[in-house]
Amino acid sequence: MTERVLIVGTGLIGGSVGLALRRRGDVHVVGFDTDAANADRARDVGAVDEIAADPGLGSQHADVVVVATPVGEVLGAVDAIARAAPAGTLVTDVGSTKGTIVAQAETLLGPERPFVGGHPMAGTDGEGVVAARADLFDGALWILTPTESTDSSAFRRVNTLVTGLGARTLALDPDAHDRLVARVSHLPYALATALMSLVADDDDARVFGAAAGSFRDVTRTAGTNPRIWHDILSTNADAVGREIKGMVAKLETMREALERGDLDTVDALIDSARSARRRLPLKGERTPADPITVEIHIPDRTGVLAEVTTALGEGGINIEDVWMDHTAAGGTLRITVDGRANAEAAIGLLSLRRFRATVLEEE
Amino acid sequence: MTERVLIVGTGLIGGSVGLALRRRGDVHVVGFDTDAANADRARDVGAVDEIAADPGLGSQHADVVVVATPVGEVLGAVDAIARAAPAGTLVTDVGSTKGTIVAQAETLLGPERPFVGGHPMAGTDGEGVVAARADLFDGALWILTPTESTDSSAFRRVNTLVTGLGARTLALDPDAHDRLVARVSHLPYALATALMSLVADDDDARVFGAAAGSFRDVTRTAGTNPRIWHDILSTNADAVGREIKGMVAKLETMREALERGDLDTVDALIDSARSARRRLPLKGERTPADPITVEIHIPDRTGVLAEVTTALGEGGINIEDVWMDHTAAGGTLRITVDGRANAEAAIGLLSLRRFRATVLEEE
Repeated sequence: MTERVLIVGTGLIGGSVGLALRRRGDVHVVGFDTDAANADRARDVGAVDEIAADPGLGSQHADVVVVATPVGEVLGAVDAIARAAPAGTLVTDVGSTKGTIVAQAETLLGPERPFVGGHPMAGTDGEGVVAARADLFDGALWILTPTESTDSSAFRRVNTLVTGLGARTLALDPDAHDRLVARVSHLPYALATALMSLVADDDDARVFGAAAGSFRDVTRTAGTNPRIWHDILSTNADAVGREIKGMVAKLETMREALERGDLDTVDALIDSARSARRRLPLKGERTPADPITVEIHIPDRTGVLAEVTTALGEGGINIEDVWMDHTAAGGTLRITVDGRANAEAAIGLLSLRRFRATVLEEE
Repeated sequence: MTERVLIVGTGLIGGSVGLALRRRGDVHVVGFDTDAANADRARDVGAVDEIAADPGLGSQHADVVVVATPVGEVLGAVDAIARAAPAGTLVTDVGSTKGTIVAQAETLLGPERPFVGGHPMAGTDGEGVVAARADLFDGALWILTPTESTDSSAFRRVNTLVTGLGARTLALDPDAHDRLVARVSHLPYALATALMSLVADDDDARVFGAAAGSFRDVTRTAGTNPRIWHDILSTNADAVGREIKGMVAKLETMREALERGDLDTVDALIDSARSARRRLPLKGERTPADPITVEIHIPDRTGVLAEVTTALGEGGINIEDVWMDHTAAGGTLRITVDGRANAEAAIGLLSLRRFRATVLEEE
C-alpha cells in the first residue's frame, strides 16, 4: 500500500526529505508550509505531490508526519497535528535540539500517536527548498531519540523511513543528543561567530584581504541562517555553555603555556589534536555494508527499546534495522548493525547493562 | 639575461616557487634541501633545474635567494648565505612569522646583501614537493615586510618576482605582519587544535561518528604539519596569546548571555558575525586589473620606502609595482595600485602621514 507522508515545513530539510522519498517511490507526499510560496516551490521542484491547507488537515490522512520546521516552530506544528490526527499517526521531527521538543511532543500527542524525535546531521550552505537535494542524506548521520515511552514498532518505522532516505541512524537519549550536538555542531558555530565578531569589532581591511583558507573554513557557519541558530542556541543554552567553558579552559591552557614559553605543553596539545583529527572519518566514508543481527532477550516492559538502542548509540553504533518478537516469557529484540566488530561491541555494551545478547548466526 | 634563483628548502612552498618561476621562463632555478631526497624529488618534478651542494655554494652565483625552509631554519640558512654570497645578492624568505627573522636576517646579511622578508599566504593540505603546484600562488596574498633599511630597488625586485608568480602583494611592518597573521591564521589554528584536543580528552566514539561539516571545517588545520606550527606558535607567542585572549573574552560574553537567557546579546553577536562573514571576499576573487599609478614626493632618506608602502599595507592596498626616481630635490616614488578607489585611498592614507601624493594621469 502506498505510504502517505505529510511534511510540515518544506525548506531545505523538508524539501530534501520529499525529494528522497519520491526518489524511493511507492509514497504519496503532502507538503505544508506557513509560507505558501515555499510550498508552491516545493511542488514545482517535485519535492511534494500535493499541498495541504494546514498541518492539522494534512495529518488526517497521513501515515507519517515529518515536522521539518525551524526548531522554534516544531511544537506549534505538533500541537496542530495532535488536535487533528487520528490515533496511530506516527510523528517525527528533524529539530536540531531534542530535550524540550521530545518531552513536550510526547505530552501533546499522547500515547495514541507515537512520536520519535529525529535529527538529520546534514545541510548545505544553501537555504530553502531551492537548495534541497534527493541525495542530501546519503551516508549522513540521522540521530533518533527514543524514550521510555517509545515502542519498538514506532521506532522501527521511523528507522526504516530514515535509512530509506540514505541515512545511517544512531539512537541517543534526547539529553545525550543535545550534549553531543553542542560539541560537534553548536560549539563550532559559536567559535565561528565569536571569531567573526572579533574581526567585525576592528573592521580591519587587511584582515578581510588576508583571510585565507583556515580563517574561511573556521568562520563558514557564521554566515548561515541566523534564525535557525538563534533557536538552536536558545533551546540548548546549558549544553552549549558547558562546551564553551571547556573550550575556554583549553584556550587558556594554550595561552598560558605560550606566555611562559612552555613549548612542551604546546607540543602536547598539538600532538593530541593532530592524532585525534586524523581519526575523523573522511566525509561520506562508510564501512562496506555487512549486516549482522544481534538478538537480545528482554523483559517485556516499556522503556526497554530506548534502553537498548541508546546503549548502542552511546557507543557510536548505527542501527541498520530493529524489530521485536513478543513471546510468553518476555520478548526478543533483534537489531541489525554493520559488521561483526560492531555486533561484538554491541553485545559488550549490552552485557554491561545486564542484557543477554548473542549474534544471530545465519542459517 | 637569464635570472639565477636559488631556492633553499624545496618543500611545498619552495617547490611551488620553483615550478611557478620555471612556468614564467627566462630563469635558471637552483635548489638546495637539507634532505637530499627532497632536492632530488624537486628536480624530478621540474621545480628546479639543478641541485646545489650547500646553500652557501648555491648562493655564490645567484641573483636572488629564496629561503623557503621551515621557520625554525630560516636564520641558519641566511647565515650560510651571508658567509658565501657576493655583495648585491638579494635575499628573501617565506617564513610565516617575520619580527625576529627580518631583524636578524638584516643583521646577518649586512647592508651589502639586501633582504626583504616575505610571506605567501597560500598552502594546501598536502606536504612536501609532491604537493607543489605552479599555480599555488595565483591570486594569493604575499606579504612583504620592508623596514627602515629596505631600499626601493630591492623591494621592487622582490615585488616583481612575487607578482610574477601570480601573487598580489601587501607591504606591512614585520610586527604588524605578525599581529595580522596571529589573527587570520594562527588563531584559527589555535581554535582547531583546542577543539580537537577537547574531543581527544573524552575519546567519545559518537563525536567521531557525528562530526559533520562544520566540525570538520573548524578542525581541518589541526591535522597539518606539527613542526611548522610549533615554530610558528613559538616565534609569534605574544601576538597569538593576545588573540586567544580576545577570543576567550568573546566566548565568555556569549556564554554569560546564554546563561542568563539574554538573547538580545546573542542575536547581536550572531548578526555582527554574519554581516562580517558576508563581506569576506570569495576565494580567489579579485577585482579586474585597472593599474593606476600614484606619484609621491618624498625626502631622500632611508626608511621612506617602508613608511610609504606599509602605510598602504595597513589600509589593505596591494602594491602592483613600485619604483623610485631620484632627483636633486629629493625623490619621486611611483606606486601602481589596482583601480582608482585604491589610488584615492592610498593618497588619503599618505596625506595623513604628510606625504604629498597625486594620481599620475596617463599622457
